[in-house]
Amino acid sequence: MQTTTATAAETPTPRHEPRDTASAPFTSRHIGPRPSDAEQMLAELGFDSLSDLVDAAVPADIRQQTPLNLPPALTEAAVLEDLRAIANRNIVKTQMIGRGFFDTVTPPVVLRKVLENPAWYTAYTPYQPEISQGRLEALLNFQTMVSDLTGLEIANASMLDESSAAAEAVLLMHRANKKAKDGITLLDADLYPQTRAVIEGRALALGLDVRTADLAAGLPAELGADLDEKGLCGIVLQQPGDSGRVHDHSAVISQAKERGAMVAIAADLLSLALITPPGEQGADIAVGNTQRFGVPLFFGGPHAAFMAVPKGLERQLPGRLVGVSQDAAGRPAYRLALQTREQHIRREKATSNICTAQALLAIVASMFAVYHGPEGVTAIAQHAHRQATRLAAALETEGFHLTQDAFFDTIQVSVPGLARTVVTAAEAAGVNLRLVDAGTVGISCDETTTDEDLIAVLSAFGAPHESLPARQDSSAASTNASSTSTNAGAPGSARIPAAQRRTSQFMTHPVFNTYKSETQMLRYLKRLSGYDLALDRTMIPLGSCTMKLNATAEMESISWPEFCSIHPFAPDHQTEGWRFLLGDLEEKLAEITGYAAVSIQPNAGSQGEYAGLLAIRRYHLDNGEGERDICLIPASAHGTNAASAVLAGLKVVVVATAPDGTIDSADLEAKIKANAGRIAAIMITYPSTHGVYDADVREVCRKVHEAGGQVYIDGANLNALVGLAQPGQFGGDVSHLNLHKTFCIPHGGGGPGVGPVAVAEHLKPYLPSAEHPITAAPYGSAGVMPISWAYLYLMGGEGLTEATRYALLNANYVAKKLGDAFPILYTGETGLVAHECILDLRELTAKSGVTAEDVCKRLIDYGFHAPTLAFPVTGTLMVEPTESEDLAEIDRFIDAMLAIHTEMEATTPQTLADSVLRNAPHPAEVLTADEWDRSYPRSQAAYPVDSLRRDKYFPPVGRIDGAWGDRNLFCSCPPIESFEASDPADAAASATAVADNIESSSSVSH
Amino acid sequence: MQTTTATAAETPTPRHEPRDTASAPFTSRHIGPRPSDAEQMLAELGFDSLSDLVDAAVPADIRQQTPLNLPPALTEAAVLEDLRAIANRNIVKTQMIGRGFFDTVTPPVVLRKVLENPAWYTAYTPYQPEISQGRLEALLNFQTMVSDLTGLEIANASMLDESSAAAEAVLLMHRANKKAKDGITLLDADLYPQTRAVIEGRALALGLDVRTADLAAGLPAELGADLDEKGLCGIVLQQPGDSGRVHDHSAVISQAKERGAMVAIAADLLSLALITPPGEQGADIAVGNTQRFGVPLFFGGPHAAFMAVPKGLERQLPGRLVGVSQDAAGRPAYRLALQTREQHIRREKATSNICTAQALLAIVASMFAVYHGPEGVTAIAQHAHRQATRLAAALETEGFHLTQDAFFDTIQVSVPGLARTVVTAAEAAGVNLRLVDAGTVGISCDETTTDEDLIAVLSAFGAPHESLPARQDSSAASTNASSTSTNAGAPGSARIPAAQRRTSQFMTHPVFNTYKSETQMLRYLKRLSGYDLALDRTMIPLGSCTMKLNATAEMESISWPEFCSIHPFAPDHQTEGWRFLLGDLEEKLAEITGYAAVSIQPNAGSQGEYAGLLAIRRYHLDNGEGERDICLIPASAHGTNAASAVLAGLKVVVVATAPDGTIDSADLEAKIKANAGRIAAIMITYPSTHGVYDADVREVCRKVHEAGGQVYIDGANLNALVGLAQPGQFGGDVSHLNLHKTFCIPHGGGGPGVGPVAVAEHLKPYLPSAEHPITAAPYGSAGVMPISWAYLYLMGGEGLTEATRYALLNANYVAKKLGDAFPILYTGETGLVAHECILDLRELTAKSGVTAEDVCKRLIDYGFHAPTLAFPVTGTLMVEPTESEDLAEIDRFIDAMLAIHTEMEATTPQTLADSVLRNAPHPAEVLTADEWDRSYPRSQAAYPVDSLRRDKYFPPVGRIDGAWGDRNLFCSCPPIESFEASDPADAAASATAVADNIESSSSVSH
Repeated sequence: MQTTTATAAETPTPRHEPRDTASAPFTSRHIGPRPSDAEQMLAELGFDSLSDLVDAAVPADIRQQTPLNLPPALTEAAVLEDLRAIANRNIVKTQMIGRGFFDTVTPPVVLRKVLENPAWYTAYTPYQPEISQGRLEALLNFQTMVSDLTGLEIANASMLDESSAAAEAVLLMHRANKKAKDGITLLDADLYPQTRAVIEGRALALGLDVRTADLAAGLPAELGADLDEKGLCGIVLQQPGDSGRVHDHSAVISQAKERGAMVAIAADLLSLALITPPGEQGADIAVGNTQRFGVPLFFGGPHAAFMAVPKGLERQLPGRLVGVSQDAAGRPAYRLALQTREQHIRREKATSNICTAQALLAIVASMFAVYHGPEGVTAIAQHAHRQATRLAAALETEGFHLTQDAFFDTIQVSVPGLARTVVTAAEAAGVNLRLVDAGTVGISCDETTTDEDLIAVLSAFGAPHESLPARQDSSAASTNASSTSTNAGAPGSARIPAAQRRTSQFMTHPVFNTYKSETQMLRYLKRLSGYDLALDRTMIPLGSCTMKLNATAEMESISWPEFCSIHPFAPDHQTEGWRFLLGDLEEKLAEITGYAAVSIQPNAGSQGEYAGLLAIRRYHLDNGEGERDICLIPASAHGTNAASAVLAGLKVVVVATAPDGTIDSADLEAKIKANAGRIAAIMITYPSTHGVYDADVREVCRKVHEAGGQVYIDGANLNALVGLAQPGQFGGDVSHLNLHKTFCIPHGGGGPGVGPVAVAEHLKPYLPSAEHPITAAPYGSAGVMPISWAYLYLMGGEGLTEATRYALLNANYVAKKLGDAFPILYTGETGLVAHECILDLRELTAKSGVTAEDVCKRLIDYGFHAPTLAFPVTGTLMVEPTESEDLAEIDRFIDAMLAIHTEMEATTPQTLADSVLRNAPHPAEVLTADEWDRSYPRSQAAYPVDSLRRDKYFPPVGRIDGAWGDRNLFCSCPPIESFEASDPADAAASATAVADNIESSSSVSH
Repeated sequence: MQTTTATAAETPTPRHEPRDTASAPFTSRHIGPRPSDAEQMLAELGFDSLSDLVDAAVPADIRQQTPLNLPPALTEAAVLEDLRAIANRNIVKTQMIGRGFFDTVTPPVVLRKVLENPAWYTAYTPYQPEISQGRLEALLNFQTMVSDLTGLEIANASMLDESSAAAEAVLLMHRANKKAKDGITLLDADLYPQTRAVIEGRALALGLDVRTADLAAGLPAELGADLDEKGLCGIVLQQPGDSGRVHDHSAVISQAKERGAMVAIAADLLSLALITPPGEQGADIAVGNTQRFGVPLFFGGPHAAFMAVPKGLERQLPGRLVGVSQDAAGRPAYRLALQTREQHIRREKATSNICTAQALLAIVASMFAVYHGPEGVTAIAQHAHRQATRLAAALETEGFHLTQDAFFDTIQVSVPGLARTVVTAAEAAGVNLRLVDAGTVGISCDETTTDEDLIAVLSAFGAPHESLPARQDSSAASTNASSTSTNAGAPGSARIPAAQRRTSQFMTHPVFNTYKSETQMLRYLKRLSGYDLALDRTMIPLGSCTMKLNATAEMESISWPEFCSIHPFAPDHQTEGWRFLLGDLEEKLAEITGYAAVSIQPNAGSQGEYAGLLAIRRYHLDNGEGERDICLIPASAHGTNAASAVLAGLKVVVVATAPDGTIDSADLEAKIKANAGRIAAIMITYPSTHGVYDADVREVCRKVHEAGGQVYIDGANLNALVGLAQPGQFGGDVSHLNLHKTFCIPHGGGGPGVGPVAVAEHLKPYLPSAEHPITAAPYGSAGVMPISWAYLYLMGGEGLTEATRYALLNANYVAKKLGDAFPILYTGETGLVAHECILDLRELTAKSGVTAEDVCKRLIDYGFHAPTLAFPVTGTLMVEPTESEDLAEIDRFIDAMLAIHTEMEATTPQTLADSVLRNAPHPAEVLTADEWDRSYPRSQAAYPVDSLRRDKYFPPVGRIDGAWGDRNLFCSCPPIESFEASDPADAAASATAVADNIESSSSVSH
């Protein structure tokens, strides 16, 4: 964003001179093949040098002429030293600002063994469920925790942030409330300001009638006429409110329901241990943040937000949803449910454009719940409430006036004209408070709030420490006892009105009541991670996902307190380090992409797309060309593109693909002509989703520009461009990047993501900003940006370019070695691919019956994560090795694919059902069964290639029946008995019984 | 040590008030069973409360009457905050002091994935090789690296530190040199002072004639007569010398050999990339430190030292030795070799008393070598040498005089009268130099030395930065190229005389030439750790080893730069934090044990024993009772006790054990009588090695005291005493503790250990000290002490006592539940055990033929690490669950043991050979084989209990034939082909061929 860029320019970092290093440069650690390997691979491809290959693969007319203007590469030690210096420019205070972000303690065992553990953070989204049972269980725990605490049956596997989740709730109401689809949506005035701003931005883009009103006493009478005329689609409430107030929402909810409106409540998850949950208040949707369940403040993100709905709305739910299904042997197994809702299937008709979510942070939050259990979470909530209550009492004793009587952990104090004075005094005493307005100070207590903190706050109000009343109840914390706490009316609920106190139980499932010692927790985490394949075990050759090295040195700084303990609304003078780093990162990304400016605010690729398209839309509106509302999208585009366009208020017109995979030039011209004057933009991906550098990209851009449209270049494939070509220079007006692809932020099992948006000069005014935010926090997923920053400085301009070259080399080597067995669907004019290649299996499938999915499952037996399946073309696999894979690993993959090819050739539609391919993957339990009546020997199933005898991964379950799970939807932790089929022969029967059980009584697990 | 204790008293730490905590106390995270579990367990045992059980188990006459006087428990966050404050009292400078300790860069991937990874650090010593193949391979890499670099065929799996390794070398020469067993040993004057001091201390205790002389020009003529008369047993040289000089040792070595002497060389491992290795110089023994291979300075330790010898001396080698053998199917497999040398077998006749070594640090050093490879290590050595060379040139240009012409990385500069001035000026410029004497400054370069550092050093000498000559060769570091470096005569060897330059290759094995990208390294580490069982997967119920939780919060601070980057000889004002922490720890340990003072210097339990016995020996000598040289040791004692007594110059007299497991009172009296006036001490373990609180311990102590002897109470079992009884109060004069047992330092797969020695008031003057050191570094394994410190503050006095109570509860519960199946060999008068119990299998073995070892191997199939086997009684298993294991895990173990009991009952000597017990453990490859001709089904082998179907560990190899490996000794990395038996049916034949191959040509891997 421009503000941070400006800051960066003003305060240069103490920068190392490129210095002498005794050991191999980091580039050689990031890039897999050794130079001698490269020679061998180039020989295979018929090139003399890497630059010859690059020259042949990348069209000359888009090549950048000058090297990247970036600092030279530094050693890991030097970059860490620089990061330390930057971190030291942030000032850590006790954070009592609140406003949706609260301090918390990440249990050390969770910090080290999840957040800092590559087995968790390098994992991919669990689309291949058989190798993802560990993280799927963790996400199911998350859903169960959210479902229990909110009192709503179906919770998804996380949302990007609380504010955008609230915006998604508004959209959900507009989709689901058939009676009042176009009605008014009312936002309560006591919402967090960032939540209101994000909802309003989304509503504006879509032309929804969203208004803000004080709903504390019910629907405002003055709106009656409007509501009668237009209808009331939904209301959005918050509990506790932005003011800290614990509301009695019953009046407004019943009024809204009378009018046929739906009700969404943004709730503080921790408060729900003590306060009546949204589901019991009659809400149709609950959203919120799970940050305070052990996830660091991270200067605003990434954090896992949540959304929960009652049964019946699950098909309207955006985002990913984990459900229970069964495997080939009938054993319970987890997988993503109801994927037909998602953008990669439904495109512009999807429930949302969300793709990457916040899996890693959701897992941390879920493990916080697993570790603390219901008693622990209640004790933490009571602690926060007790500290707020004692502080309130002290201030009241001293004559101060609180703006609310009923509160949970946050109070606001009237100090007419003196708010800034108090806030400044508190800061001097080591505590950040919230400056609400000139006469109001906000104070939030949390898990970490000590008596010393309260005394410091009191001192800022000029109140003596003696005013703090003695603590009355600290039993929960003082012994080793697992006391059975009674929530309602407990001493810990003093300032929560009786009618708003929670009486129902939550988190009663054994998973929240078992792993209480650190040893137990450690082993549980180890067991789950042992089920999964991540980058720490195997290459993940996922086309379009760029699963490259997430280096330890890049990861190291994110958990330093000077980075992760900073509140997003801390005063600027405390956050100089952060703002320098973020501004510097934006600057470097602008240099790499050839654009004028970058905003790192979007916290996912989908959000970057939305922000970029919104910028285009607003640009046209400001130019008086509001009629430009058509977004051209090639048929091969990722579904998210279409979904994002819709959210930005654009209409999607699909452009056909030519037989060679490029955009159909005639169709493009026809569509432009047919929509003359209405073309807002074209969205293209470059290199294309077909893994090829289309030679005519400049021509496509020219045509759209001539038609008055803007060119959006999706940066998903930027790993094929860095240092070689700049989208901002060969035709793009906007791009989003995926820092979790090209710039080394790990995938985290499905998030966090960072999707900066880059724009040309004329679009700079339309970047996301504090006034036009698209995320809850001003800098989005700030917390993980040091990863990308470190990557840039470790590699330097030449290193980054070299990485791109090796990405091309690896992909072309794979294409060459596999092309005879599996035809490469598309290549460029020179017969080369870009950084990935599509293997066409359709002919083989037609002959043998073996599907691409069978191949994916069989690869698991070989110890591999599958390539991208059926995107962008069904019946194909897309392979992207990235530069980080070494030749031995690539050869291992090639050997596996060729061995599978041989297996396919030996298979016919007649023998398919009992083939090693259709029965894949083979769990250990199957392979060691006493009986074996398959047509192939066990050894072929388990050890088709010899190297597996030394290093074998066994999936914990066999092939999972996804459809069964969608028919028998169950999305929280299954009862423990369902796993207790003692004899595999009984498993199917037992699992069916369990599924019936699940279907008929979700109460078993609640 | 008293000095540090004094410091602690002077500078109190900023201490938290015990403060409010929202979450469960750490005690409940450390202790496994929940209070409700404890109730159930106590009911099983017939007690109403935990204190009733404790009162019944622990003799009243030894119970302490007042609670521990320790601070109350703090939260993890508070302890980390305190540690941060302590760390901040250390000052990190660029360390150029040298003297055996050099700065280095731990590759981040190794730091995080080994040193900070519980899969590595919580592992036990690999006595059960089938579940230890990962760490055994890593240690074999270590041995190969040392063997290659030193040019000697057999290297062990690490020594405690360089100085004690040199002392062990002296003892080895006295054992091995039959011709001059009692001859003189000459130490070169150019040894590190700490090495000389440690050797001299050892020699004094044993009455060896060890003298120091300048051997640079050969054997001194003036010693000729003495040598003629007494003979020359051996000489100890150092290369490069303490002065930095690269010696030409050829003259003195040939003179020594002529006299029949052996030659030991203490060598800098990194220098051996450039300098002729000891083996090629004619040395019989090489010792040294591997610290600078990626292990942090750690304020002096822990670091892995090494010892290497030529073939023929392997049976004289102290310490652990990993070797290659084969498993039941004939596949190559690793295990500890030649264990018959070790103290647990040979007792007072052992080669050494070393037990715990430095496995974790050896693994870090080996992985540094794996990651950098021979080229990388050479480049690092060249860098250090080049920087020293350039600095020397600059200083010489400026007119300074160096004391040596030939050097590697260390120079000494003559500055008559000005040394302190220069050192002070350098410190002000950010660099620590070595104050050798008033007129000499020492400067050591290393992997991390930058030009900025050199310029800072020059500035301290008043030399301008322009005096630094330009760099001539930096090719090794500047590209991604795997350049083939030529070592001899390379520009990087400028100041190493041609005759001393290395010309031979090293680390040519593929393991050092494969894992070059971080991704490869990460996966290699993951694969190795995946082979192993550590505490992160299962309880390790090892009697006498106390495998309790090593909590993440305890581990967290050890890699903070303010702790780990401090040089052991940095000036005191830079190490205030360290000295406070160590002194405070000594103070708290004195309080816990009831002694007057503690020294934390001993870096292993064996060293603590040696230090304690030496204190007793010196006390008697000072009292004019030098004739007191008998150490009484019960027959049941750990072998280390006897070995340590011998090293302290004492003679071992064994006292018999009574049928009830206690010391045979009559025999004790008889032995005292028979040795009247000669009793120096008795060594007893309390509770006894039989896992029982002997009721008459006070009586035993009294008798020995009356006989004029001192009482040494081995603290191995202190986990049964903390907070309940103090050895210093119920009769002990000395104890050593094992911080890696009772105080949570992880076992690290066989080290680091810390063995503080605690003494009563009258023995305080005899504690190890700077004048009488037993380790190379003044504070031993300082680097890991924050772990124990954190544990004490996290638990508080009451928490520590509670931990002891739960340790008793868990052990008695196991004894109760298993006692019917496996008789408990010893119990106290009340029928209770202490913190462990011995299961007697002898009757079952007699009936079924199934041995205790079979049970250990079968437990692997159940996913467990075996209990302690055959100690202290053969045919038994000793089980110590510790307080950290929860009831579910303990019950899982009990179920496994009972299931095995059933299997044993179904076995007869006739059916044994084909039984599931004798064939255990069952690797996946066996279980999934196409053919199955065993008498039991696969399911019984793999899934004898149902819970294994959800969480199954497969050992990578079957039962290992240790004797085969000892007969075919091979102790470095085997050729890669030996693993390539493609068909398990061929494996046996192939492995035999490989073994032949190995036996006949070790050159294959060199």
